[in-house]
Amino acid sequence: MADTKVRVGVVGASGYAGMELLRLLAHHPGVELTYVAGNHDESNPLPETFPFLHGWDELRIEAFDAELCARRCDAVFVALPSGVSGGIAVQLWRMGKRVIDLSGDLRLPPDQYEAWYQKPAVDAEALAAAVYGLTEWNRPLVRSAQLVANPGCYATAVLLALLPAVVAGWMADGQPVVVDAKSGVSGAGRHPKLPYQFGELADNFYAYRVGRHQHTPEIEQQLARTGGGQRVLLTTHLIPAVRGIYATCYIPLARPVPLAEAFEHYRSVYAGEPFMHVHPPGQVPEMKHVRASNRCHLGLAADGRSQVLIVMSVIDNLQKGAAGQALQNFNLMHGFPETTALHAWPVYP
Amino acid sequence: MADTKVRVGVVGASGYAGMELLRLLAHHPGVELTYVAGNHDESNPLPETFPFLHGWDELRIEAFDAELCARRCDAVFVALPSGVSGGIAVQLWRMGKRVIDLSGDLRLPPDQYEAWYQKPAVDAEALAAAVYGLTEWNRPLVRSAQLVANPGCYATAVLLALLPAVVAGWMADGQPVVVDAKSGVSGAGRHPKLPYQFGELADNFYAYRVGRHQHTPEIEQQLARTGGGQRVLLTTHLIPAVRGIYATCYIPLARPVPLAEAFEHYRSVYAGEPFMHVHPPGQVPEMKHVRASNRCHLGLAADGRSQVLIVMSVIDNLQKGAAGQALQNFNLMHGFPETTALHAWPVYP
Amino acid sequence: MADTKVRVGVVGASGYAGMELLRLLAHHPGVELTYVAGNHDESNPLPETFPFLHGWDELRIEAFDAELCARRCDAVFVALPSGVSGGIAVQLWRMGKRVIDLSGDLRLPPDQYEAWYQKPAVDAEALAAAVYGLTEWNRPLVRSAQLVANPGCYATAVLLALLPAVVAGWMADGQPVVVDAKSGVSGAGRHPKLPYQFGELADNFYAYRVGRHQHTPEIEQQLARTGGGQRVLLTTHLIPAVRGIYATCYIPLARPVPLAEAFEHYRSVYAGEPFMHVHPPGQVPEMKHVRASNRCHLGLAADGRSQVLIVMSVIDNLQKGAAGQALQNFNLMHGFPETTALHAWPVYP
Amino acid sequence: MADTKVRVGVVGASGYAGMELLRLLAHHPGVELTYVAGNHDESNPLPETFPFLHGWDELRIEAFDAELCARRCDAVFVALPSGVSGGIAVQLWRMGKRVIDLSGDLRLPPDQYEAWYQKPAVDAEALAAAVYGLTEWNRPLVRSAQLVANPGCYATAVLLALLPAVVAGWMADGQPVVVDAKSGVSGAGRHPKLPYQFGELADNFYAYRVGRHQHTPEIEQQLARTGGGQRVLLTTHLIPAVRGIYATCYIPLARPVPLAEAFEHYRSVYAGEPFMHVHPPGQVPEMKHVRASNRCHLGLAADGRSQVLIVMSVIDNLQKGAAGQALQNFNLMHGFPETTALHAWPVYP
Repeated sequence: MADTKVRVGVVGASGYAGMELLRLLAHHPGVELTYVAGNHDESNPLPETFPFLHGWDELRIEAFDAELCARRCDAVFVALPSGVSGGIAVQLWRMGKRVIDLSGDLRLPPDQYEAWYQKPAVDAEALAAAVYGLTEWNRPLVRSAQLVANPGCYATAVLLALLPAVVAGWMADGQPVVVDAKSGVSGAGRHPKLPYQFGELADNFYAYRVGRHQHTPEIEQQLARTGGGQRVLLTTHLIPAVRGIYATCYIPLARPVPLAEAFEHYRSVYAGEPFMHVHPPGQVPEMKHVRASNRCHLGLAADGRSQVLIVMSVIDNLQKGAAGQALQNFNLMHGFPETTALHAWPVYP
Repeated sequence: MADTKVRVGVVGASGYAGMELLRLLAHHPGVELTYVAGNHDESNPLPETFPFLHGWDELRIEAFDAELCARRCDAVFVALPSGVSGGIAVQLWRMGKRVIDLSGDLRLPPDQYEAWYQKPAVDAEALAAAVYGLTEWNRPLVRSAQLVANPGCYATAVLLALLPAVVAGWMADGQPVVVDAKSGVSGAGRHPKLPYQFGELADNFYAYRVGRHQHTPEIEQQLARTGGGQRVLLTTHLIPAVRGIYATCYIPLARPVPLAEAFEHYRSVYAGEPFMHVHPPGQVPEMKHVRASNRCHLGLAADGRSQVLIVMSVIDNLQKGAAGQALQNFNLMHGFPETTALHAWPVYP
Repeated sequence: MADTKVRVGVVGASGYAGMELLRLLAHHPGVELTYVAGNHDESNPLPETFPFLHGWDELRIEAFDAELCARRCDAVFVALPSGVSGGIAVQLWRMGKRVIDLSGDLRLPPDQYEAWYQKPAVDAEALAAAVYGLTEWNRPLVRSAQLVANPGCYATAVLLALLPAVVAGWMADGQPVVVDAKSGVSGAGRHPKLPYQFGELADNFYAYRVGRHQHTPEIEQQLARTGGGQRVLLTTHLIPAVRGIYATCYIPLARPVPLAEAFEHYRSVYAGEPFMHVHPPGQVPEMKHVRASNRCHLGLAADGRSQVLIVMSVIDNLQKGAAGQALQNFNLMHGFPETTALHAWPVYP
Repeated sequence: MADTKVRVGVVGASGYAGMELLRLLAHHPGVELTYVAGNHDESNPLPETFPFLHGWDELRIEAFDAELCARRCDAVFVALPSGVSGGIAVQLWRMGKRVIDLSGDLRLPPDQYEAWYQKPAVDAEALAAAVYGLTEWNRPLVRSAQLVANPGCYATAVLLALLPAVVAGWMADGQPVVVDAKSGVSGAGRHPKLPYQFGELADNFYAYRVGRHQHTPEIEQQLARTGGGQRVLLTTHLIPAVRGIYATCYIPLARPVPLAEAFEHYRSVYAGEPFMHVHPPGQVPEMKHVRASNRCHLGLAADGRSQVLIVMSVIDNLQKGAAGQALQNFNLMHGFPETTALHAWPVYP
């Protein structure tokens, strides 16, 4: 662990992922938070913007200024909307900072990005330098990365569920992997919109962006890099809940795999991982079991009557799906134990 | 419409489906509610048990008595737990009553029932006489039925979504239809259990009975009767919401079907149906759009990259999934317009 | 009941109260809905704006046009925000229409209105003509009214709780009546705002406009008209729920009043009222017991150790607190039975 | 801080307060958790009972055994239902352990206890030895206590709001302090009951135990000890939320107190307190702002038209209202910094 503290900035602190980063960084013994940028109309002491943050009275949310940010920080988290975030991340990276971008801007090659995001991509050199920060599967590259593309929330939950099956060579060819995924509403951000009003979402549930969610190519790209060529049919839904992602993955198998064998394999793949837990057959993961933690819980089930392995995966979208995994990557990049400031147990009930 | 009122009984009025029946029957112009049975410890005027029912002060919830019930009623709804409900329904049917059973007891042949429900089946003669009450698909038989097996809540949502594809002959053979279904908690009944406590379910979401939900054979049986031999891989989940079912169905197609063609077909299959609505492509159904109504809304989407048709289906599990469809069947059996006492618009927000 | 139908318009149909009016009017046998105005960007067939309303395909939400509205309607409900609603209501009333205004614009004398609403009042002549539509307490005037100021949601719940104590002469002088009131979020309207986002309101609860809620003078005015001169200390809170108001009223008594006597008095005051229910001592009203109905339930409790009568009052803010009471007044004004289209039982669970 | 770790036991770990203690103790550097007792049917590794606790695989929930508990522990938290908890706490205290009891059993003199709890009190000697653990107001006694009666959740929120006004001598005599308090459902415990089922509580809100909540005498006793003789009229309500208490307190004043003066006084009373925050006038506390933290936020408002000071107080009922404050007292008793293992920021959103 470094002798002096790492000077850290958070750009996009008015959003939920940025807020969560502040909350986590507050207890990081190796970090000095030196810069916080967010919406200009919230340029006031942090506790006035977020009354639950009082105690951090000296810090202010400032309008973003790249020069100032670079001067004050060694490392920066950028948690802005896609289309804005990547450009700022690249700018700071070019100024010699270690940068973790939480948006989708640095995760795909330009043509894929522009097809799925309908926005211009950042330059190809930066994209080539960006390391995909799915920590458990990409440690060596993350450790030495200067620029990290932090994975999407759905992509994280789904990849942690699918990759063990890919490396085992179990997946059938030619049939898509159906992924029926559901998310709490904090994944949609903090900007007020009618569908996310309490009166509209309470007691509601529905699919959205069916067949065209932008995490689809991100998932397929990682499957391919790990040796799998499957198509993923991702359908995302909104749950009347605040935090959490639940992904139910239906994996057509190339050969019958007994459930006990699948369990042993998954357990051994994730043995020693501090944030991973694989439930024994018969138990299902619950979304609330990981709330406000950086954990991912997996459950396995077989359909006795077809050759399909069902893998259920839960994460907290603001932690393992965003700020938590970003901090996990930060820890890895800076030589801190990976669990630093991420050891909190889930909040239950 | 009959000149005199039909004398109607509700057995199981302490549960949610039974309560919903009371609420609906209250405004039925051709019905006289003459008998209400439920938990004995609630043997008191209805409004004391259900303060929202005051105005019906003369009625009492009584402990069930078959003789009394048969004497007072022409028709009876039985809404008790599986394993109890069917026996009582058959008993009343043998006494010459027209009976609608809301449980799973009369929906499957004995061997299937015993395999999936782990309980002894009712006698085969009664099972043979019971008509499956999926109203939109079984009108002629329901109209003359004396004993109706009212469909399961999941089965209703799923069958209304799948059957148009079956009759069109679109379904591929050899691949299972993945049905990822989600339900509000009222489907689990009113008996207090830890997982359904507010503190446990709020902000939670999880799968249950994965690969072994008892509505699976019920769905497959109707597919087969309509000409489809597909296996259904049904996974059910619990939503932190009270009412509603959302079924996302992934149908592997035998040939490419353009989305516009699928929409026209679905719309024409359900043309004139008072409770069915098919959204045009691009719109998705929302669970809340049918709340407290007998409607079923369907939405269609294609996965452009695999030959899968996605059909989303929503119902209110206590209405179209239970009490509402039971009343719809009752109306059909007794010559009332099918929408009688079922015309209420969804309650929104 | 009139032989021909009353031609009715709803102005403000994009908001929650307006939507609720549409839902209720749909089943009114004496009404023809001939005009619906709302946000211009929703100028399309009603079912596209509100998918739960399909079946009413011929109607469109139009941008408001006074001439058109007057030409098409005999009676108009105006459910727009305060500051806009009253002006339009008065305009239509001057054109000879019978008008029910759901905003706060016509409820207070100009000086009070301007002090509490911080907006200019409508002209004094119109204010003088407007009848306060607390139906149970103002029937004779409502019956012949041409212009009705429909009461506020909090004011309705609180006045129905307090007025029986006023007419009994029980209230002590010199001490304020503390009213601790709570509301579901639909009372805040449908326009998206950060505090009403699901992620912000779920698991939250807080007071707002403490000591300065604009329903305070409206309540005191009616107390005074009924013979009470008490001050009301109204504190309003937001509940993480969609529909409903719960008002807990602490009435300092001039003399000890046994609880049984209080109960008998309240029950006799509201005897025969179709929407009022007084719980016997020992029972408390629950907010959900009146959901989606026009009912008001009251409960009474004594504090054995101080001379305070506690009256709890629940209504559905969109029904008895807005659209339901407006329709109740409409029925009274047009000679329909008061319960017409308002007979629905509460939706439970 | 002690050189060796304190060996700590938790009795009642199956309940919500016990679970929260486990969660907090897990990160306490001076504690070794050596004993966990709870429901016998959950006698298995902790992570199987509470899947969110995996990582603590060696610990088991055992059926309570006083001898074993005393042998393994230096200090014990007892978090059982009232009527059971106090007896066990006293037993362990007599065995020389330092004990913190989270129930109501040790908070009142025998006559008061038996009148409000309807159960036999523990012996008077133990009651006399028990120190009331409202940390901020009772530090010297807690520091040297062997037996602590941890305050009730409502009592904590209310006393922290009222005591500054008491010591200032502001309270009027002869008029009760009206306290309108609301709680999330986790305060009702983890044992399944119908009213706490999700289907019953969602979208609901209601008062309970009106005029007879057992925290009333506990509050009055502390007011009296601090020099106030006021009666408290406490009404408690249930919120459809999991964690949190919101107390709205209406304090009749003996003389006018400007709001600015009240704010300065409250702020100075709580200056330096790590868990207390007083909002400036114009801001209100929100329940969610303290969720999953040990904080108490206070807000002040004046009713300009009557001489009443309104104080709003929020806590998390499972933390400052139970496990958090218990741990705060434990820290004080054992010479740890008071914030040890309690420094987590609120979880938001």
